[in-house]
Amino acid sequence: MGETLHQEAGLLTPDDVKARREADDPHSPVVRFGADKPLRLDAGVDLRHLQVAYQTYGQPNADRTNAILVCHALTGDQHVASLNPVTGKPGWWETLVGPGKPIDTERFFIICANVLGGCMGTTGPSSTDPATGRPYGLEMPIVTIRDMVNAQAMLLDHLGIERLFCVAGGSMGGMQVLQWAASYPERVFCALPIATAARHSAQNIAFHEVGRQAVMADPDWCGGAYLAQGLAPHRGLAVARMAAHITYMSDQGLHRKFGRRLQDRVLPTFGFDADFQVESYLRHQGESFVQRFDANSYLYVTRAMDYFDLAADYDGVLANAFRGSKTRFCVASFTSDWLFTSADSRAIVHALNASGASVSYAEIESDKGHDAFLLEEPVLFDIARGFLDSAARAAGLPAAKVR
Amino acid sequence: MGETLHQEAGLLTPDDVKARREADDPHSPVVRFGADKPLRLDAGVDLRHLQVAYQTYGQPNADRTNAILVCHALTGDQHVASLNPVTGKPGWWETLVGPGKPIDTERFFIICANVLGGCMGTTGPSSTDPATGRPYGLEMPIVTIRDMVNAQAMLLDHLGIERLFCVAGGSMGGMQVLQWAASYPERVFCALPIATAARHSAQNIAFHEVGRQAVMADPDWCGGAYLAQGLAPHRGLAVARMAAHITYMSDQGLHRKFGRRLQDRVLPTFGFDADFQVESYLRHQGESFVQRFDANSYLYVTRAMDYFDLAADYDGVLANAFRGSKTRFCVASFTSDWLFTSADSRAIVHALNASGASVSYAEIESDKGHDAFLLEEPVLFDIARGFLDSAARAAGLPAAKVR
Repeated sequence: MGETLHQEAGLLTPDDVKARREADDPHSPVVRFGADKPLRLDAGVDLRHLQVAYQTYGQPNADRTNAILVCHALTGDQHVASLNPVTGKPGWWETLVGPGKPIDTERFFIICANVLGGCMGTTGPSSTDPATGRPYGLEMPIVTIRDMVNAQAMLLDHLGIERLFCVAGGSMGGMQVLQWAASYPERVFCALPIATAARHSAQNIAFHEVGRQAVMADPDWCGGAYLAQGLAPHRGLAVARMAAHITYMSDQGLHRKFGRRLQDRVLPTFGFDADFQVESYLRHQGESFVQRFDANSYLYVTRAMDYFDLAADYDGVLANAFRGSKTRFCVASFTSDWLFTSADSRAIVHALNASGASVSYAEIESDKGHDAFLLEEPVLFDIARGFLDSAARAAGLPAAKVR
Repeated sequence: MGETLHQEAGLLTPDDVKARREADDPHSPVVRFGADKPLRLDAGVDLRHLQVAYQTYGQPNADRTNAILVCHALTGDQHVASLNPVTGKPGWWETLVGPGKPIDTERFFIICANVLGGCMGTTGPSSTDPATGRPYGLEMPIVTIRDMVNAQAMLLDHLGIERLFCVAGGSMGGMQVLQWAASYPERVFCALPIATAARHSAQNIAFHEVGRQAVMADPDWCGGAYLAQGLAPHRGLAVARMAAHITYMSDQGLHRKFGRRLQDRVLPTFGFDADFQVESYLRHQGESFVQRFDANSYLYVTRAMDYFDLAADYDGVLANAFRGSKTRFCVASFTSDWLFTSADSRAIVHALNASGASVSYAEIESDKGHDAFLLEEPVLFDIARGFLDSAARAAGLPAAKVR
């Protein structure tokens, strides 16, 4: 579709065109599953012509037992530990993943795939629907966290990875970790769910609904068909991102970082400009987000999180999701995270205890809120390193190099 | 302007027309101050032709010493204890204000005025600018909490109330209470600031900025001139209200009230309808709000709250705002209020203690979040009643009737 793209582009900015190209032809390896290998979705329909885009880091060992699947959060992608080709920024988890890092690329074979419903090469609403030759838009069926995990399982089958040494992720990535452990216990030696929950809370559904309404209120959303019309609901998506971004930080963190300090001025302007630094920061977050993320993907992926309630699939008893599991778990939360609270993590730990699973739990002191899992948090790094070293010994993997 | 209004109305709905009429000719008594009595604003300009709309309840005593000024919150109005003519609903604080209630209309003379910048009859952006004959829109100067209080002081002068027995209010109403006590200590015998703060936090500024951006992103906002064009940014304002409404409740309260329960259905629809009750509730909050509130007023009044930092006017030392004050204070907060936290209230109490003022403080256990101050909270009622009874005795007012 390379040739027709520019002709159709109309009011799309170069960034939109790039984003749309990324959906079908990303700067990543892709696996394309034929119509004979459909993905049966929780919504009850088959998704044919599934495409999964992914990145790998490090090398598999001879018997392919050293693989770690990293699952990304709402607006993350497969570029976990290398330059992101769309933003030009470092990978989103280079704090934790890399040579000599806790998730050590010299020791483990790390795989990260763009989630189903995303916009970075795995099938999502901005992908071309092979049946019509146009972007799916709202014709894309709703996907769930379990659907995302099943798509990842198809990727692993393709890569010849029968069993993962570890599945790790934060936030929505942590939801996928829990779903992996529940759906495929025999394929997961150990699991590291961070800053996450076994079900999305009413407050979190409410914030997501605000974001979706902001997108859908933008006339340029065009009922979801904006790409075909050469438009993009940038204003609505920026508002959605701004609201969400507040929930990723803590009251204390915002106070420490910005307080009531004014932006480039001594006195307030008595107007609606971004007088306060926190306003300017938020606006920047909104504006830069719309350059890299598809609005319909935002609707689909937030919806997948809303629908997540792991216990619901197990008679309402979360422990049943893990009954008999031999997977080793390490659960971590941050004290100032009010989006995925320590109480949410403790509920996971209680269920794991009740199911007889092996679990350790760390509540990490931090004022960085939910985003702490992405930031420089040495206690998290120490915990992840210790957990993975211990699990690697138990799995018969070679010890880490002494540095 | 009654005759021309309909001709100009264009795409305005009947509700918009009603709202606009409310701005100039509300269902309330109004005081109109002539050009010879301008209000000097913090922004450094004079507002001429100030109009203040208000309601009173009960009767002044012979020496007019039994007056209580009630200050309303962001989207409140003067209809504190009687049917609201716009919404057809009861007054917003009938839980606390009425015959035999803690703020007893059989005992006190209660005054409540629509705030400066509002849309219910006091001069605001939807009022007609006498200089042009058109709505002010963004030509209205920015107002502050102190400007609001100064406008109320002009109203009290007009009503012949030299000294208030009490000033009471929650949230932004509480900010006005604190400003009253600081600006006019000799006019305030006692003060009841509830669920408020002496300065707006970075997180709260951030949430307000999201709301303003949602309004301004709506093409029907028309750069603020929507009324002149017969439009109204209802979609943007509804999104702003939805985001704000989440901050008025608590995580626990939302969980208790809605949890993950679905709306009118047993199974999720796998779509973007309001599947969850909490989504349907939020959408309703957004839709009903836009029928009663002017979008530009929302910008102005949120901005006034953002600019509020009482200590800043007193060399950064909040205690200096109350130094030498003889006013009696009762401060109250709610444990689950994360918008105006108990820590915010304790900061007020510490400053009052440091200034040597008389103060009592109650932190009230509740899972209803910030909105608790508007709801059925018997502990608040008991505290308010006890505080006002005791202050009334000290002020030499007759004791309450035994019921």
